[in-house]
Amino acid sequence: MLVSTERRYPMAPLPVPEPFELLETLDALDARKIRFERNRIRLPKGIEGSFGIIRHPGASLAVPITDEGQVVLLRQYRFAVQARLLEFPAGTLEEGEDPLESMQRELGEEAGYSAARWDALGPMLPCPGYSDEVIHCFVARELTPLENPPAGDDDEDLEVLLMSPQELDAQLASGHEWLDGKSVTAWYRAKQLLGLA
Amino acid sequence: MLVSTERRYPMAPLPVPEPFELLETLDALDARKIRFERNRIRLPKGIEGSFGIIRHPGASLAVPITDEGQVVLLRQYRFAVQARLLEFPAGTLEEGEDPLESMQRELGEEAGYSAARWDALGPMLPCPGYSDEVIHCFVARELTPLENPPAGDDDEDLEVLLMSPQELDAQLASGHEWLDGKSVTAWYRAKQLLGLA
Repeated sequence: MLVSTERRYPMAPLPVPEPFELLETLDALDARKIRFERNRIRLPKGIEGSFGIIRHPGASLAVPITDEGQVVLLRQYRFAVQARLLEFPAGTLEEGEDPLESMQRELGEEAGYSAARWDALGPMLPCPGYSDEVIHCFVARELTPLENPPAGDDDEDLEVLLMSPQELDAQLASGHEWLDGKSVTAWYRAKQLLGLA
Repeated sequence: MLVSTERRYPMAPLPVPEPFELLETLDALDARKIRFERNRIRLPKGIEGSFGIIRHPGASLAVPITDEGQVVLLRQYRFAVQARLLEFPAGTLEEGEDPLESMQRELGEEAGYSAARWDALGPMLPCPGYSDEVIHCFVARELTPLENPPAGDDDEDLEVLLMSPQELDAQLASGHEWLDGKSVTAWYRAKQLLGLA
Protein backbone atom coordinates (compact mmCIF):
# COMPACT_ATOMS: atom_id res chain seq x y z
CA MET A 1 0.00 0.00 0.00
CA LEU A 2 2.81 2.41 -0.82
CA VAL A 3 1.19 5.38 -2.47
CA SER A 4 3.32 7.85 -4.32
CA THR A 5 3.29 11.49 -3.30
CA GLU A 6 2.32 12.36 -6.86
CA ARG A 7 -0.87 10.29 -6.71
CA ARG A 8 -2.01 11.10 -3.18
CA TYR A 9 -0.86 14.66 -2.89
CA PRO A 10 -2.44 17.23 -3.24
CA MET A 11 -5.55 15.12 -3.68
CA ALA A 12 -5.94 14.44 0.03
CA PRO A 13 -9.67 13.98 0.56
CA LEU A 14 -11.57 16.84 2.08
CA PRO A 15 -14.45 16.32 4.48
CA VAL A 16 -17.84 17.42 3.23
CA PRO A 17 -17.77 21.11 4.12
CA GLU A 18 -20.59 22.20 6.35
CA PRO A 19 -19.95 25.86 7.05
CA PHE A 20 -21.26 27.77 10.01
CA GLU A 21 -22.84 31.15 9.35
CA LEU A 22 -20.57 33.96 10.52
CA LEU A 23 -22.77 36.64 12.06
CA GLU A 24 -20.09 38.94 13.44
CA THR A 25 -16.43 38.94 14.39
CA LEU A 26 -16.46 40.43 17.88
CA ASP A 27 -12.70 40.75 18.38
CA ALA A 28 -9.46 39.32 17.12
CA LEU A 29 -5.80 39.15 18.17
CA ASP A 30 -2.87 38.42 15.88
CA ALA A 31 0.23 36.64 17.15
CA ARG A 32 2.86 35.83 14.53
CA LYS A 33 1.29 33.41 12.05
CA ILE A 34 -1.88 32.73 14.01
CA ARG A 35 -4.98 34.79 14.77
CA PHE A 36 -7.54 34.27 17.51
CA GLU A 37 -11.09 35.42 16.75
CA ARG A 38 -14.19 35.63 18.88
CA ASN A 39 -17.10 35.23 16.50
CA ARG A 40 -20.86 35.21 16.81
CA ILE A 41 -21.91 32.31 14.61
CA ARG A 42 -24.96 30.25 13.77
CA LEU A 43 -24.24 26.52 13.88
CA PRO A 44 -25.78 24.12 11.30
CA LYS A 45 -28.24 22.89 13.93
CA GLY A 46 -29.51 26.48 14.31
CA ILE A 47 -27.97 27.45 17.65
CA GLU A 48 -26.35 30.90 17.81
CA GLY A 49 -23.51 31.79 20.11
CA SER A 50 -20.08 33.32 20.40
CA PHE A 51 -17.12 30.98 20.04
CA GLY A 52 -13.34 31.41 20.04
CA ILE A 53 -11.30 30.05 17.17
CA ILE A 54 -7.64 29.96 16.15
CA ARG A 55 -7.18 30.80 12.47
CA HIS A 56 -4.06 28.94 11.38
CA PRO A 57 -2.29 28.88 7.99
CA GLY A 58 -1.75 25.10 8.23
CA ALA A 59 1.37 23.07 8.80
CA SER A 60 3.27 20.08 7.51
CA LEU A 61 5.02 17.21 9.27
CA ALA A 62 7.45 14.49 8.21
CA VAL A 63 8.12 11.04 9.64
CA PRO A 64 11.73 10.66 8.42
CA ILE A 65 13.10 7.12 8.16
CA THR A 66 16.79 6.46 7.51
CA ASP A 67 18.02 3.72 5.16
CA GLU A 68 18.82 1.72 8.33
CA GLY A 69 15.16 1.93 9.40
CA GLN A 70 15.74 4.45 12.19
CA VAL A 71 13.14 7.13 12.88
CA VAL A 72 14.34 10.74 13.12
CA LEU A 73 12.76 12.67 16.00
CA LEU A 74 13.27 15.99 17.73
CA ARG A 75 13.37 16.82 21.41
CA GLN A 76 11.96 20.32 21.26
CA TYR A 77 11.18 23.04 23.79
CA ARG A 78 7.51 24.06 23.63
CA PHE A 79 6.75 27.23 25.51
CA ALA A 80 2.99 26.61 25.49
CA VAL A 81 3.41 23.53 27.70
CA GLN A 82 6.70 24.71 29.25
CA ALA A 83 8.50 21.43 28.60
CA ARG A 84 10.62 19.57 26.04
CA LEU A 85 8.63 17.12 23.92
CA LEU A 86 9.49 14.28 21.56
CA GLU A 87 8.06 15.21 18.15
CA PHE A 88 8.49 14.71 14.45
CA PRO A 89 9.93 17.59 12.43
CA ALA A 90 7.10 19.94 11.45
CA GLY A 91 6.52 23.54 10.59
CA THR A 92 3.85 26.16 10.12
CA LEU A 93 3.22 27.13 6.50
CA GLU A 94 3.95 30.57 5.19
CA GLU A 95 0.93 32.20 3.57
CA GLY A 96 0.14 30.24 0.39
CA GLU A 97 3.12 27.90 0.79
CA ASP A 98 2.94 24.35 -0.57
CA PRO A 99 2.95 21.82 2.32
CA LEU A 100 5.44 19.45 0.69
CA GLU A 101 7.90 22.21 -0.26
CA SER A 102 7.59 23.66 3.23
CA MET A 103 8.34 20.29 4.78
CA GLN A 104 11.34 19.71 2.53
CA ARG A 105 12.78 23.01 3.80
CA GLU A 106 11.88 22.28 7.44
CA LEU A 107 13.46 18.82 7.31
CA GLY A 108 16.75 20.49 6.42
CA GLU A 109 16.44 23.27 8.98
CA GLU A 110 15.19 21.21 11.92
CA ALA A 111 16.70 17.76 11.39
CA GLY A 112 19.58 18.41 8.98
CA TYR A 113 18.45 15.98 6.28
CA SER A 114 17.25 16.04 2.73
CA ALA A 115 14.98 13.24 1.47
CA ALA A 116 14.63 11.85 -2.05
CA ARG A 117 11.39 9.94 -1.46
CA TRP A 118 8.20 11.44 -0.10
CA ASP A 119 4.89 9.69 0.51
CA ALA A 120 1.79 11.53 1.66
CA LEU A 121 -0.01 10.25 4.77
CA GLY A 122 -2.90 12.67 4.33
CA PRO A 123 -4.08 15.52 6.52
CA MET A 124 -4.82 15.49 10.23
CA LEU A 125 -6.57 17.92 12.54
CA PRO A 126 -4.72 18.54 15.80
CA CYS A 127 -7.32 20.54 17.62
CA PRO A 128 -10.71 20.72 15.89
CA GLY A 129 -12.48 22.03 18.98
CA TYR A 130 -10.96 25.51 18.63
CA SER A 131 -8.45 25.62 15.77
CA ASP A 132 -8.84 25.32 12.00
CA GLU A 133 -5.25 24.05 11.67
CA VAL A 134 -4.70 21.25 9.16
CA ILE A 135 -1.37 19.36 9.30
CA HIS A 136 -0.26 17.66 6.07
CA CYS A 137 1.69 14.54 7.00
CA PHE A 138 4.41 12.80 4.98
CA VAL A 139 6.87 9.96 5.25
CA ALA A 140 10.35 11.04 4.14
CA ARG A 141 12.82 8.36 3.02
CA GLU A 142 16.13 8.03 1.16
CA LEU A 143 17.63 10.55 3.57
CA THR A 144 20.97 12.32 3.14
CA PRO A 145 22.52 14.24 6.05
CA LEU A 146 23.21 17.83 5.00
CA GLU A 147 26.78 19.02 5.34
CA ASN A 148 25.64 22.58 6.02
CA PRO A 149 22.06 22.50 7.29
CA PRO A 150 20.27 25.84 6.81
CA ALA A 151 19.59 27.79 9.99
CA GLY A 152 16.13 27.45 11.53
CA ASP A 153 14.15 30.08 13.38
CA ASP A 154 15.90 31.93 16.20
CA ASP A 155 13.38 30.79 18.76
CA GLU A 156 13.73 27.06 17.98
CA ASP A 157 15.41 25.05 20.74
CA LEU A 158 15.78 21.40 19.80
CA GLU A 159 18.03 18.37 19.41
CA VAL A 160 17.81 15.55 16.87
CA LEU A 161 17.39 11.91 17.99
CA LEU A 162 17.41 8.60 16.13
CA MET A 163 15.27 5.72 17.41
CA SER A 164 14.23 2.32 16.14
CA PRO A 165 10.48 1.83 15.59
CA GLN A 166 10.52 -0.58 18.55
CA GLU A 167 12.12 2.01 20.82
CA LEU A 168 9.58 4.62 19.74
CA ASP A 169 6.68 2.25 20.42
CA ALA A 170 8.15 1.44 23.82
CA GLN A 171 8.46 5.16 24.61
CA LEU A 172 4.84 5.67 23.63
CA ALA A 173 3.67 2.71 25.70
CA SER A 174 5.76 3.63 28.75
CA GLY A 175 3.65 6.60 29.72
CA HIS A 176 6.91 8.28 30.71
CA GLU A 177 6.99 10.47 27.66
CA TRP A 178 4.60 13.26 26.85
CA LEU A 179 4.00 13.14 23.15
CA ASP A 180 1.87 15.44 21.12
CA GLY A 181 -1.11 14.31 19.10
CA LYS A 182 0.27 15.12 15.69
CA SER A 183 3.38 12.98 16.24
CA VAL A 184 1.51 9.92 17.51
CA THR A 185 -1.08 10.26 14.74
CA ALA A 186 1.57 10.55 12.05
CA TRP A 187 3.50 7.61 13.49
CA TYR A 188 0.35 5.47 13.50
CA ARG A 189 -0.33 6.28 9.88
CA ALA A 190 3.31 5.82 8.91
CA LYS A 191 3.28 2.35 10.46
CA GLN A 192 0.22 1.50 8.40
CA LEU A 193 1.90 2.77 5.22
CA LEU A 194 5.17 0.98 5.98
CA GLY A 195 3.41 -2.27 6.85
CA LEU A 196 4.60 -2.13 10.48
CA ALA A 197 1.07 -2.10 11.95
CA MET B 1 -0.01 -4.59 30.90
CA LEU B 2 -3.42 -3.69 32.27
CA VAL B 3 -2.87 -0.93 34.76
CA SER B 4 -5.62 0.00 37.12
CA THR B 5 -6.96 3.52 37.15
CA GLU B 6 -6.15 3.68 40.82
CA ARG B 7 -2.45 3.00 40.28
CA ARG B 8 -1.88 5.10 37.16
CA TYR B 9 -4.23 7.95 37.85
CA PRO B 10 -3.63 10.72 39.00
CA MET B 11 0.05 9.76 38.96
CA ALA B 12 0.44 10.33 35.24
CA PRO B 13 4.04 11.38 34.81
CA LEU B 14 4.71 15.03 34.29
CA PRO B 15 7.44 16.28 32.00
CA VAL B 16 10.28 18.13 33.69
CA PRO B 17 8.85 21.63 33.88
CA GLU B 18 10.97 24.24 32.18
CA PRO B 19 9.02 27.46 32.53
CA PHE B 20 9.38 30.47 30.32
CA GLU B 21 9.71 33.84 31.99
CA LEU B 22 6.52 35.87 31.55
CA LEU B 23 7.56 39.48 30.97
CA GLU B 24 4.15 40.96 30.17
CA THR B 25 0.68 39.92 29.06
CA LEU B 26 -0.01 42.28 26.15
CA ASP B 27 -3.65 41.37 25.56
CA ALA B 28 -6.13 38.57 26.19
CA LEU B 29 -9.51 37.42 24.94
CA ASP B 30 -11.87 35.07 26.78
CA ALA B 31 -14.19 32.76 24.88
CA ARG B 32 -16.22 30.35 26.99
CA LYS B 33 -13.76 28.05 28.78
CA ILE B 34 -10.66 29.14 26.87
CA ARG B 35 -8.55 32.29 26.90
CA PHE B 36 -6.12 33.51 24.27
CA GLU B 37 -3.18 35.57 25.51
CA ARG B 38 -0.48 37.47 23.70
CA ASN B 39 2.51 37.48 26.01
CA ARG B 40 6.01 38.87 25.92
CA ILE B 41 8.14 36.05 27.26
CA ARG B 42 11.77 35.07 27.61
CA LEU B 43 12.41 31.51 26.42
CA PRO B 44 14.84 29.20 28.28
CA LYS B 45 17.43 29.75 25.55
CA GLY B 46 17.31 33.47 26.27
CA ILE B 47 15.34 34.75 23.26
CA GLU B 48 12.60 37.30 24.01
CA GLY B 49 9.51 37.73 21.90
CA SER B 50 5.74 37.93 21.88
CA PHE B 51 3.84 34.71 21.42
CA GLY B 52 0.18 33.75 21.34
CA ILE B 53 -1.10 30.98 23.61
CA ILE B 54 -4.43 29.33 24.35
CA ARG B 55 -4.96 28.86 28.08
CA HIS B 56 -7.15 25.80 28.42
CA PRO B 57 -8.59 24.15 31.57
CA GLY B 58 -7.77 20.66 30.22
CA ALA B 59 -9.98 17.89 28.93
CA SER B 60 -10.62 14.19 29.21
CA LEU B 61 -11.32 11.52 26.61
CA ALA B 62 -12.57 7.93 26.72
CA VAL B 63 -12.04 5.02 24.32
CA PRO B 64 -15.21 3.07 25.18
CA ILE B 65 -15.21 -0.66 24.34
CA THR B 66 -18.39 -2.74 24.59
CA ASP B 67 -18.45 -6.28 25.98
CA GLU B 68 -18.63 -7.44 22.34
CA GLY B 69 -15.36 -5.64 21.57
CA GLN B 70 -16.96 -2.81 19.58
CA VAL B 71 -15.51 0.69 19.83
CA VAL B 72 -17.93 3.55 20.58
CA LEU B 73 -17.29 6.65 18.46
CA LEU B 74 -19.04 9.93 17.73
CA ARG B 75 -19.63 11.66 14.43
CA GLN B 76 -19.56 15.23 15.66
CA TYR B 77 -19.93 18.66 14.04
CA ARG B 78 -16.86 20.82 14.67
CA PHE B 79 -17.38 24.45 13.82
CA ALA B 80 -13.64 25.23 13.88
CA VAL B 81 -13.06 22.98 10.87
CA GLN B 82 -16.64 23.30 9.55
CA ALA B 83 -17.11 19.55 9.11
CA ARG B 84 -18.29 16.41 10.93
CA LEU B 85 -15.45 14.34 12.37
CA LEU B 86 -15.11 10.85 13.76
CA GLU B 87 -13.93 11.19 17.36
CA PHE B 88 -13.95 9.54 20.74
CA PRO B 89 -16.20 11.01 23.43
CA ALA B 90 -14.36 13.82 25.18
CA GLY B 91 -15.04 16.99 27.07
CA THR B 92 -13.47 20.13 28.41
CA LEU B 93 -13.02 20.20 32.18
CA GLU B 94 -14.87 22.62 34.37
CA GLU B 95 -12.53 24.67 36.55
CA GLY B 96 -10.94 22.31 39.09
CA GLU B 97 -12.91 19.28 37.87
CA ASP B 98 -11.41 15.80 38.16
CA PRO B 99 -10.66 14.38 34.67
CA LEU B 100 -12.06 10.92 35.43
CA GLU B 101 -15.27 12.23 36.99
CA SER B 102 -15.70 14.62 34.08
CA MET B 103 -15.28 11.79 31.60
CA GLN B 104 -17.75 9.58 33.42
CA ARG B 105 -20.34 12.36 33.08
CA GLU B 106 -19.45 13.07 29.43
CA LEU B 107 -19.67 9.39 28.48
CA GLY B 108 -23.29 9.45 29.62
CA GLU B 109 -24.12 12.78 27.99
CA GLU B 110 -22.38 12.22 24.66
CA ALA B 111 -22.54 8.48 24.09
CA GLY B 112 -25.32 7.33 26.43
CA TYR B 113 -23.27 4.80 28.39
CA SER B 114 -21.97 4.26 31.86
CA ALA B 115 -18.79 2.23 32.41
CA ALA B 116 -17.78 0.09 35.39
CA ARG B 117 -14.12 -0.29 34.45
CA TRP B 118 -11.75 2.58 33.75
CA ASP B 119 -8.06 2.38 32.84
CA ALA B 120 -5.88 5.44 32.43
CA LEU B 121 -3.91 5.82 29.22
CA GLY B 122 -2.06 8.88 30.47
CA PRO B 123 -2.09 12.45 29.25
CA MET B 124 -1.58 13.76 25.73
CA LEU B 125 -0.95 17.19 24.30
CA PRO B 126 -3.05 18.02 21.27
CA CYS B 127 -1.44 21.25 20.23
CA PRO B 128 1.76 22.12 22.12
CA GLY B 129 2.76 24.79 19.62
CA TYR B 130 0.13 27.25 20.87
CA SER B 131 -2.11 25.65 23.50
CA ASP B 132 -1.44 24.45 27.04
CA GLU B 133 -4.31 21.95 26.83
CA VAL B 134 -3.70 18.53 28.39
CA ILE B 135 -6.13 15.72 27.54
CA HIS B 136 -6.39 12.90 30.08
CA CYS B 137 -7.15 9.67 28.19
CA PHE B 138 -8.96 6.59 29.48
CA VAL B 139 -10.25 3.24 28.27
CA ALA B 140 -13.83 2.66 29.47
CA ARG B 141 -15.14 -0.92 29.64
CA GLU B 142 -18.00 -2.91 31.16
CA LEU B 143 -20.43 -0.51 29.49
CA THR B 144 -24.13 -0.24 30.21
CA PRO B 145 -26.43 1.74 27.90
CA LEU B 146 -28.28 4.40 29.89
CA GLU B 147 -32.06 4.29 29.70
CA ASN B 148 -32.32 8.05 30.12
CA PRO B 149 -29.00 9.60 29.10
CA PRO B 150 -28.49 13.07 30.60
CA ALA B 151 -28.74 15.98 28.14
CA GLY B 152 -25.47 17.33 26.79
CA ASP B 153 -24.65 20.90 25.83
CA ASP B 154 -27.09 22.74 23.57
CA ASP B 155 -24.47 23.33 20.92
CA GLU B 156 -23.44 19.68 20.62
CA ASP B 157 -24.44 18.08 17.31
CA LEU B 158 -23.43 14.42 17.15
CA GLU B 159 -24.42 10.82 16.54
CA VAL B 160 -23.07 7.66 18.17
CA LEU B 161 -21.45 4.89 16.08
CA LEU B 162 -20.19 1.42 16.92
CA MET B 163 -17.24 -0.04 14.99
CA SER B 164 -14.98 -3.04 15.29
CA PRO B 165 -11.27 -2.30 15.88
CA GLN B 166 -10.61 -3.61 12.35
CA GLU B 167 -13.16 -1.23 10.84
CA LEU B 168 -11.67 1.68 12.75
CA ASP B 169 -8.14 0.79 11.59
CA ALA B 170 -9.40 0.53 8.01
CA GLN B 171 -11.05 3.96 8.30
CA LEU B 172 -7.81 5.42 9.58
CA ALA B 173 -5.77 3.78 6.82
CA SER B 174 -8.21 4.74 4.05
CA GLY B 175 -7.35 8.40 4.09
CA HIS B 176 -11.05 9.03 3.46
CA GLU B 177 -11.75 10.07 6.99
CA TRP B 178 -10.45 13.16 8.69
CA LEU B 179 -9.66 12.21 12.22
CA ASP B 180 -8.37 14.43 14.92
CA GLY B 181 -5.09 13.92 16.70
CA LYS B 182 -6.50 13.18 20.14
CA SER B 183 -8.65 10.33 18.82
CA VAL B 184 -5.89 8.64 16.83
CA THR B 185 -3.45 9.06 19.72
CA ALA B 186 -5.88 7.62 22.24
CA TRP B 187 -6.70 4.71 19.92
CA TYR B 188 -3.01 3.95 19.46
CA ARG B 189 -2.47 3.87 23.20
CA ALA B 190 -5.65 1.90 23.79
CA LYS B 191 -4.47 -0.74 21.32
CA GLN B 192 -1.20 -1.00 23.21
CA LEU B 193 -3.05 -1.36 26.53
CA LEU B 194 -5.50 -3.91 25.12
CA GLY B 195 -2.75 -5.92 23.45
CA LEU B 196 -4.11 -5.21 19.95
CA ALA B 197 -0.90 -3.50 18.75
